[in-house]
Amino acid sequence: MNQVFELTIIGSNSAVSTFDRFPTAQILQIQNQFILIDCGEGTQFRLDKFGIKKSAIDFIFISHLHGDHYFGLIGLLTSYNLSGRISPLHLFGPAGLKEIIDLQLKYNGAELRYTLFFQATTIEGNRPLFSNELFEVSSFPLKHRIDTTGFLFSEKPSVRRIKKEKIEHFGLSVEDIVSIKAGNSFISEDGHEIEAEEFLRPIIKPRSYAFCSDTKYFEELAEIVQHVTCLYHEATFETEKEHLAEKTMHSTARQAALTAKNADVGRLLIGHFSSRYKDLSLLLGEARAVFRNTDLATEGEKYEL
Amino acid sequence: MNQVFELTIIGSNSAVSTFDRFPTAQILQIQNQFILIDCGEGTQFRLDKFGIKKSAIDFIFISHLHGDHYFGLIGLLTSYNLSGRISPLHLFGPAGLKEIIDLQLKYNGAELRYTLFFQATTIEGNRPLFSNELFEVSSFPLKHRIDTTGFLFSEKPSVRRIKKEKIEHFGLSVEDIVSIKAGNSFISEDGHEIEAEEFLRPIIKPRSYAFCSDTKYFEELAEIVQHVTCLYHEATFETEKEHLAEKTMHSTARQAALTAKNADVGRLLIGHFSSRYKDLSLLLGEARAVFRNTDLATEGEKYEL
Repeated sequence: MNQVFELTIIGSNSAVSTFDRFPTAQILQIQNQFILIDCGEGTQFRLDKFGIKKSAIDFIFISHLHGDHYFGLIGLLTSYNLSGRISPLHLFGPAGLKEIIDLQLKYNGAELRYTLFFQATTIEGNRPLFSNELFEVSSFPLKHRIDTTGFLFSEKPSVRRIKKEKIEHFGLSVEDIVSIKAGNSFISEDGHEIEAEEFLRPIIKPRSYAFCSDTKYFEELAEIVQHVTCLYHEATFETEKEHLAEKTMHSTARQAALTAKNADVGRLLIGHFSSRYKDLSLLLGEARAVFRNTDLATEGEKYEL
Repeated sequence: MNQVFELTIIGSNSAVSTFDRFPTAQILQIQNQFILIDCGEGTQFRLDKFGIKKSAIDFIFISHLHGDHYFGLIGLLTSYNLSGRISPLHLFGPAGLKEIIDLQLKYNGAELRYTLFFQATTIEGNRPLFSNELFEVSSFPLKHRIDTTGFLFSEKPSVRRIKKEKIEHFGLSVEDIVSIKAGNSFISEDGHEIEAEEFLRPIIKPRSYAFCSDTKYFEELAEIVQHVTCLYHEATFETEKEHLAEKTMHSTARQAALTAKNADVGRLLIGHFSSRYKDLSLLLGEARAVFRNTDLATEGEKYEL
């Protein structure tokens, strides 16, 4: 599997920064496409720190308008202006986000010199947001104190390719290749009929990534993120603080794992840790007790999905 | 001189962050009062880094609405909410700042739990902004691409105190002290008349600090900042790039020094360095050639004024 589908954690803390952990931001790379998911304060500096080329980002998704998920956005957008960006940028988030950006740009006294395509998200059901030849994205409602959506990123099924060695061995013509790809069997020079399947490289199962932050636990979420390759789910608190999770509409590590288990996902990453936890092993342990294949979202780390 | 009047540089770069320099922010401490001047993105994290207690800040002054001077403000204001701040905060800046904050708070879905007093600055002449028993602040217009003000912070003349050893030696009563402070001479037990001056500690000349960022060079500025103890002046470019300074309405290091010289200030700090300069010695050299007592505004460093 040589096609890139890779997540880098830029910020893993909730609310303010503590213990050198910073507010939410992630980079999802799908082949040559870079997608920024949430953009807490200081994200642009941290992208520099982790050696991620900011100019490579063409898509930004913002889950909701609590500051630890978007206060770094306006800085990034205006920095693009300074660095001479001209390629368009696609931004998805709550409608108010556009209003906030426009107001700040107005007082900034300079217009963006690149095109910013904005599409408002909504908490009315699951919505397709974007699709190109490589991936598609949809949003789904979470349950938080203000309107919040999660995002589901799915690879497009790739066109099946013919094994290189078969092309050489049988001296296949372009016509042969088109025919085999269409599923037709091939008649070799010595008259044997060979099934198309023999020539084709194995099917790469499209991978998927679901981003869920911030939300309280609710059972139906597992249906939406069913079978994803990787689920990122916030895990702000330990189980003993479930009353706090309830009150602030966040989740415990155990609840994040419960959703992962019920959704039968490939792996779970937990993040958005409360500033009360310096040591995160308690949260990890509680999640793993329910869903074994859990890891901490660790800043600067890359996860091949 | 045991009364604190001290400047700490939090960010010294212009525009984006480079060479581990960050956008403009400074802390001026006058005795027990902490004043934040400008607040570029990430300021709250950097205050933590430098061990400055954010909760001690009761005054914030914002020079203008270019992002590298205020994008960190909303994060700081909302962090205060999370950390349970209840003491009021006094904020001074262009009128649009309040609009921007209010819009972001609206979508944040939570009100500030402390009182935020906002006073709009104006570029119409020099204006007194604030005064308490320790210091006073006024604003003055700079010449930049959008409405921008500088700020002048001045210590109040301190009440003259009586030397401790004199109180003990002569066994001064409260009435004696009041009388001496009022300038009356004192008659000792053996009948000698002693001038009030003999009892009083030396006059501490009130100190002053002028903050000038961002601005193009203009001669009249020197009159406004005449004789300040310390002048901070932006010095974005070297002299060879004066055409760029002209075009972007910034200053060269030489121009900053020229203002310092014409104003006959005590010392000059230059900052707001362009990201083109890794090594700042060229800028420092050009400034010192005109005004000897110049230093670079260096992040994390404290300057006793």
